[in-house]
Amino acid sequence: MNNKNTKKQNKEIVLAEHPSGVPTTDTFQINDIDMPPSAALEDNEVLIKSIYVSVDPGMRGFMDKGEDDAAGNKYELNQPITSRSVAQIIDSNDNSLFKKGDIVHGRFKWQKYQIVSTDDIEKVDPELAPISTAVSMLGIPGLAAYFGIFKIGQIKQGETVVVSGAAGSVGSMASQIAKITGCKVVGIAGSPEKIDYLENDLGLDKGVNYKQTEDMQAAIKAACPNGVDVFFDNVGGALFDAVFANINRQGRIAICGQIAEYNEDNPPKGPRPMHTLIKKSARMEGFVVYDFSDEFDDAKKQMAEWYNNGQLIYKENLIEGFENIPAAFIGLFEGENIGKQMVKVADINE
Amino acid sequence: MNNKNTKKQNKEIVLAEHPSGVPTTDTFQINDIDMPPSAALEDNEVLIKSIYVSVDPGMRGFMDKGEDDAAGNKYELNQPITSRSVAQIIDSNDNSLFKKGDIVHGRFKWQKYQIVSTDDIEKVDPELAPISTAVSMLGIPGLAAYFGIFKIGQIKQGETVVVSGAAGSVGSMASQIAKITGCKVVGIAGSPEKIDYLENDLGLDKGVNYKQTEDMQAAIKAACPNGVDVFFDNVGGALFDAVFANINRQGRIAICGQIAEYNEDNPPKGPRPMHTLIKKSARMEGFVVYDFSDEFDDAKKQMAEWYNNGQLIYKENLIEGFENIPAAFIGLFEGENIGKQMVKVADINE
Repeated sequence: MNNKNTKKQNKEIVLAEHPSGVPTTDTFQINDIDMPPSAALEDNEVLIKSIYVSVDPGMRGFMDKGEDDAAGNKYELNQPITSRSVAQIIDSNDNSLFKKGDIVHGRFKWQKYQIVSTDDIEKVDPELAPISTAVSMLGIPGLAAYFGIFKIGQIKQGETVVVSGAAGSVGSMASQIAKITGCKVVGIAGSPEKIDYLENDLGLDKGVNYKQTEDMQAAIKAACPNGVDVFFDNVGGALFDAVFANINRQGRIAICGQIAEYNEDNPPKGPRPMHTLIKKSARMEGFVVYDFSDEFDDAKKQMAEWYNNGQLIYKENLIEGFENIPAAFIGLFEGENIGKQMVKVADINE
Repeated sequence: MNNKNTKKQNKEIVLAEHPSGVPTTDTFQINDIDMPPSAALEDNEVLIKSIYVSVDPGMRGFMDKGEDDAAGNKYELNQPITSRSVAQIIDSNDNSLFKKGDIVHGRFKWQKYQIVSTDDIEKVDPELAPISTAVSMLGIPGLAAYFGIFKIGQIKQGETVVVSGAAGSVGSMASQIAKITGCKVVGIAGSPEKIDYLENDLGLDKGVNYKQTEDMQAAIKAACPNGVDVFFDNVGGALFDAVFANINRQGRIAICGQIAEYNEDNPPKGPRPMHTLIKKSARMEGFVVYDFSDEFDDAKKQMAEWYNNGQLIYKENLIEGFENIPAAFIGLFEGENIGKQMVKVADINE
C-alpha cells in the first residue's frame, strides 16, 4: 500500500503569480499533492492519468488578471493551470462508455492524476492517428487552422495565401490546408531551419525568413506578385503591417493568434488599418475555434484523412517529464520551436 | 449668338494642387471655358447642364498624389474634379432613351455644361423623390448606409447598433435603417443641434455628443448596457477605440468612412485591434458601395418606399452657386453640417 502510494505520487502545477510580460519559472509552482481516492468516484466520474499535455501560446492571455472571457479560461492564483491534454482512464465506475484503459482528451488540470467528470472528456480513437494528435493536429491547433482557413479566410483555389508563424502548430496546418485546396502559399517564419521545413517538408511555394529580411513589405510583394488574397495571421505587430500592405481587394485576414502581443500589458499601437480596409473592401476577423464546435467532427475526419494519405504532415516537438511543463510553455515565446509543442508526462499502461 | 454665349458661359473647377491636410481654397481653381458645341455630339452622347452637385468627405482621398484606386477615382492636377451630380439633358441626338429635358445622374465633372456618354448616365425618376436625392438618399450615401448596415453589419432585430457621424449623410441613413429594422440605435455626433436632430427628428434611442463627453468609452457603455453588436463607423480615430472597447462577441464593425483620417498624410497610429478581435470573435470590414452594384435597384426601391411612407427622413443642406462648390466641400471638414451637403448649380428648364 505504501509502495503503491510512493509509486503514484501525485503532483500539480499552479499559477504562482500573474506574469508581467513573458512568463518565467516564477510564474509557476509545482506542489506535491495527494492521490485522488478511487473510492470517492461518482458514477459520472473517472480517475485519469495525464499522458500528453499540450502547451499553447494562447494560454498566456488566460494568465492575466482581470475579467473572465466567455469560455471561462482565466487561471486563478494558486489554482492548477489547465490545458488540452490526453489521458488514460485508470479507474471508472462506468464500464459502458468510459472503461479503464481508455484514452481520452479534454481540458485537464496540470496534475499527474485527477478525477474528471465524463461530461468533460472525449474518447480518443488510437486507430485514427497517434493519440497525442487529439490535442494538436486533430485538436484545437488543427481546428483553428481548418476553420480559420475555410470559414474566416474563405480561401478559393488559385488564390494567394500568406501564413505568419507558418512553422508553428497552427500555421503549419493552415499552410498545408491552403496548399491542399490549390492555393499559392507563402509562409513566414524566423529561422533557416523553419524556412527549410516550410519549403521542403511542407511544400509551400515560398518561405520568408523575417529575421533575415530588411524590408518585409517588399519581400511579400516579391513573393506574391498577384497580391495577397488571404492572410492567416498568427503573429501580429510589424509583420502584420508588412503583409497587410499587400492585401488585395476583397482580401480576408483571419486573426488567429497574435504571439507578438500576448506578453504586452497594454494593446500595442500600430498604423490604423481602417483606411486600407475601405480602399480594399477588405476584412479582418478574429475567431476562436469554439465558434465552430458544431462542425468539429467533420473537420477532424477530413484532417485525419489527409494525414493518413500523406497530404498533411504533422510535426511534434516533444519534451518529457511533468516538471518540464513550465519550461515547455516558456519556450514557446523564444520562437525556436518547429511544430506542435507537447509534453509527455507518462507512458500508457505503465 | 453673342447673347446666347454670354448667358451660357461655361465654367469648370480643377484640382490646382494636391492638398496636404484639410483642403483650402488654394486646392481648387475656377476657370472660364468654352461651351461644348452641340454640333459635335456623337450618337451616344448628350449635352448636359449640371443642376445639383454632391460633395462628400470621401472625395478627399482622391485628391492625394499616388497610385490610382480600382475605381479610377483619383483627381489629376489641372483636371476638373468629378463628383456625383444631377443634371438635365439640354441636347441629345438619341430621342429614344435620353431625350432633351430628361433628368439624369452620374459622376460628372465640375463643369456647368459638358458632353457625356450615355454609358455614364442613369435616368432619374422625378416621381420617386426630389431629384437631388438621386445622389444622396437614393445615391451613394444612402446606398453606403443600406449595404453597410445589411451586408457588412448584418444587423438583426433587437441588436444594439452604434453609428458614428450619425448626423451626416451616410450616418443619418444608417441610423434610420437600423431603427426601421428593429434595432436599438445609439448615434454619435458633435453638437447639441445634431443630438437634438438624432433624438427628436430621427427618433434614435440615444444621441451622444462626443465633444461634451469626457469618457466616451464609459458613455457608450452607459448608452449600450447590452454592449454593441454592430458598429457603423464613419469617423475612426479615438472615437473608434471608445466604441470598439464595448463590442460584443461576434460583433461586426462596418468601416464606411474615416473622416478623422482623410486629411492625414500617413495612416495615424492607434491601439492595434487584433487581440480584441480574437477575444470577441469580432469582425472589421471595409467596403465601397460599388461592391454591391448588382443590388442598387432593389435598395433604391426599398429606401424610396420608406421615404414616401414617412419612415425615412432625409435632410439636405443646400448651398447655391457653382462658384461655391469648393467652399461647400471644405465645410464638410468643419463638422457643422447636418444632413447631406449639396450645391445647387442651376434651375431645371431655366
